[in-house]
Amino acid sequence: MARIVMKFGGTSVGDIERIKTVARRVADEVEAGNEVAVVVSAMSGDTNRLVGLCRDVSAMHDAREHDVVVSTGEQVTVGLLSMALQDLGVEARSWMGWQIPIRTDVAHGRARILDIDTTTLLERMAQGQVAVVAGFQGIGDTDNRVTTLGRGGSDTSAVALAAALEADRCDIYTDVDGVYTTDPRIVPKARKLARVTYEEMLEMASLGAKVLQTRSVEMAMKYGVRVQVRHSWPEYWTVPGTLVCGEDEIVEKELVSGITYSRDEAKVTLTKVSDLPGVAARIFGPLAEGNINVDMIVQNVSDDGHSTDLTFTVPTGDRDKAVRLLEDRQEELGYKALAAHDGVVKVSVIGVGMRSHAGVAQTMFKALADRGINIQVITTSEIKISVLISEEYTELAVRALHTAYGLDAA
Amino acid sequence: MARIVMKFGGTSVGDIERIKTVARRVADEVEAGNEVAVVVSAMSGDTNRLVGLCRDVSAMHDAREHDVVVSTGEQVTVGLLSMALQDLGVEARSWMGWQIPIRTDVAHGRARILDIDTTTLLERMAQGQVAVVAGFQGIGDTDNRVTTLGRGGSDTSAVALAAALEADRCDIYTDVDGVYTTDPRIVPKARKLARVTYEEMLEMASLGAKVLQTRSVEMAMKYGVRVQVRHSWPEYWTVPGTLVCGEDEIVEKELVSGITYSRDEAKVTLTKVSDLPGVAARIFGPLAEGNINVDMIVQNVSDDGHSTDLTFTVPTGDRDKAVRLLEDRQEELGYKALAAHDGVVKVSVIGVGMRSHAGVAQTMFKALADRGINIQVITTSEIKISVLISEEYTELAVRALHTAYGLDAA
Repeated sequence: MARIVMKFGGTSVGDIERIKTVARRVADEVEAGNEVAVVVSAMSGDTNRLVGLCRDVSAMHDAREHDVVVSTGEQVTVGLLSMALQDLGVEARSWMGWQIPIRTDVAHGRARILDIDTTTLLERMAQGQVAVVAGFQGIGDTDNRVTTLGRGGSDTSAVALAAALEADRCDIYTDVDGVYTTDPRIVPKARKLARVTYEEMLEMASLGAKVLQTRSVEMAMKYGVRVQVRHSWPEYWTVPGTLVCGEDEIVEKELVSGITYSRDEAKVTLTKVSDLPGVAARIFGPLAEGNINVDMIVQNVSDDGHSTDLTFTVPTGDRDKAVRLLEDRQEELGYKALAAHDGVVKVSVIGVGMRSHAGVAQTMFKALADRGINIQVITTSEIKISVLISEEYTELAVRALHTAYGLDAA
Repeated sequence: MARIVMKFGGTSVGDIERIKTVARRVADEVEAGNEVAVVVSAMSGDTNRLVGLCRDVSAMHDAREHDVVVSTGEQVTVGLLSMALQDLGVEARSWMGWQIPIRTDVAHGRARILDIDTTTLLERMAQGQVAVVAGFQGIGDTDNRVTTLGRGGSDTSAVALAAALEADRCDIYTDVDGVYTTDPRIVPKARKLARVTYEEMLEMASLGAKVLQTRSVEMAMKYGVRVQVRHSWPEYWTVPGTLVCGEDEIVEKELVSGITYSRDEAKVTLTKVSDLPGVAARIFGPLAEGNINVDMIVQNVSDDGHSTDLTFTVPTGDRDKAVRLLEDRQEELGYKALAAHDGVVKVSVIGVGMRSHAGVAQTMFKALADRGINIQVITTSEIKISVLISEEYTELAVRALHTAYGLDAA
């Protein structure tokens, strides 16, 4: 017997038939003797419809009223799923954020969970009642109003609830059957990982593998919640997904567990910047104030010895804004020229195993060089190496690296 | 300066443009210096959509979960209307039933309001903030769950809130501009009443004039809430509606204030029922247990002197059930024959003035007799006289009575 939290996203509860399918899956876990809490999102499309109504009524609207409106999507699904469970003879009841309560701060639209009172839920679950909990929502601790956690917040609700309930596992049912070594659309030989560490998952999530919300993985890591990524379709129910867990649960660590890529990168180069102390701060300060997330940064000494060339990447959508901010300050910053390019891709190899192994970077550089792929920028962290290359080489590079690190399925 | 409650139904908030129109009307009242609370229904069609989802997921569903789902309709409109008001520069915030709270019993789907805590609302209204309150919903006093008041419950919410706030007036904005002396579709010379008493309104509401929910009028009468029926379209905003109030506010009482009709009547006749004590109880007991609402009843001594003929009416939809119940008991009840007929209409004249005037009934009987209309059944109360006639005479009878009581507009 285990205590588990199951989470189903908007597509999984997108219509009545799918809600009934979800109910059958939940009933399986109850019949297996588990104590179960289920977290659900709004029916797919519903949140967009509600957001659209808010936007139509007023372009600049009160985030608190926005939360009142959009939180109704999850309220509908918890009611419907509870009915579907009862229809199968499974005891169930719905819980809104304010009823549990799930206390959050009052940053409406992007609230953070502060505390979940599990007393009543635990009692009911022990009696065999399934707790059907509205994801994405809570109640503001100082204003007693409905809050929402922001897009994708239901993953965070599920992990937070699993932490508070001290659940044995948090199963996230989604539209993929697990976490893969890389994008199977590019590499047909990509393998599903049985286990992946929180750290690796975080790198993968933020680098473009859209399986779990980054916030939910951070929370799982912080509280040690074992998260299983599973497919929501019945034909996958007997197939294990991917367990996201601590390093201690992974005996045989692979050197590299995944190859990711991100096309949302624009490269900006400033040439002949005066090489004075504080120049980097003067350049990146205005970008930070403009809420532009600077990612890869390299600085080279220029040929003349007293100036420097600086290259960095920003999200594609922020390119023009970054350029404008820097051009406005050309005199102050004292650079000679500014160049901005799209058409680049960031490819990364990720693996906790590389901490204790040398030569991982060398394998990457050699694999790319062998295919004549020029590396424009390199950055590294403890568990990943990222390179910026020309976008046209994306598939070639990802496939070459997947093979080079021995990740191809047999 | 007055304290007023304004209520807008589903059609009035049926789309974003209409919600903005409602906001303008509310803004007018705020600019006039009034303290305002607004009660709104769900956008028209939304409640039906939500009810449909519940029905599709499970034919026999938990009323508590049903309430969770359907109450979201009003939650959406309070959020949107608050935004629309803020967009006009009017301070406003939304309130769900559980936030105020509006405490009800736990008869989910048809809950009764027990108590409304107005402390915070009054403070905010005094500071100029409009309270935008979700109609139709409350919170169960013993289960802490969302309750709904049943169809049309938003009128009841509005009147109950007006009573609790000790409001000067409760304006119900709807799709008619007031209460008429009769159905203007039948009598083009029907007049809008400036004032009508609670008692008259109750008779009118339950007899077929679908302007206000009966429950809301009962509550208005109990707490002395002055209710104004108004049209929600802007072209009617300068036109007064009809005030539903106590008799003391009506100086010049009309003898008859309205003529109503109801086609939802079926006539059942039992002939030669043994005329023994308790026979009526034995006949109507089973009907009451079957939840069949018996309306008009007449009993005549039969020609033979020791048996009786009994005629009564039931709602058309209950006719077959009533017949079945009585046929099952023919032996026990000892009647000779049972006949049931549709094709009848109940026409009523209503007026508090008839209490103190004789001859009101005579005017009715003469007017009908002059047109050759046969009266099948008659019942009377202190402020109304109802007759059952053949349905084909509906229009003729209503027009004749409207003229006979001097109600025709000049």
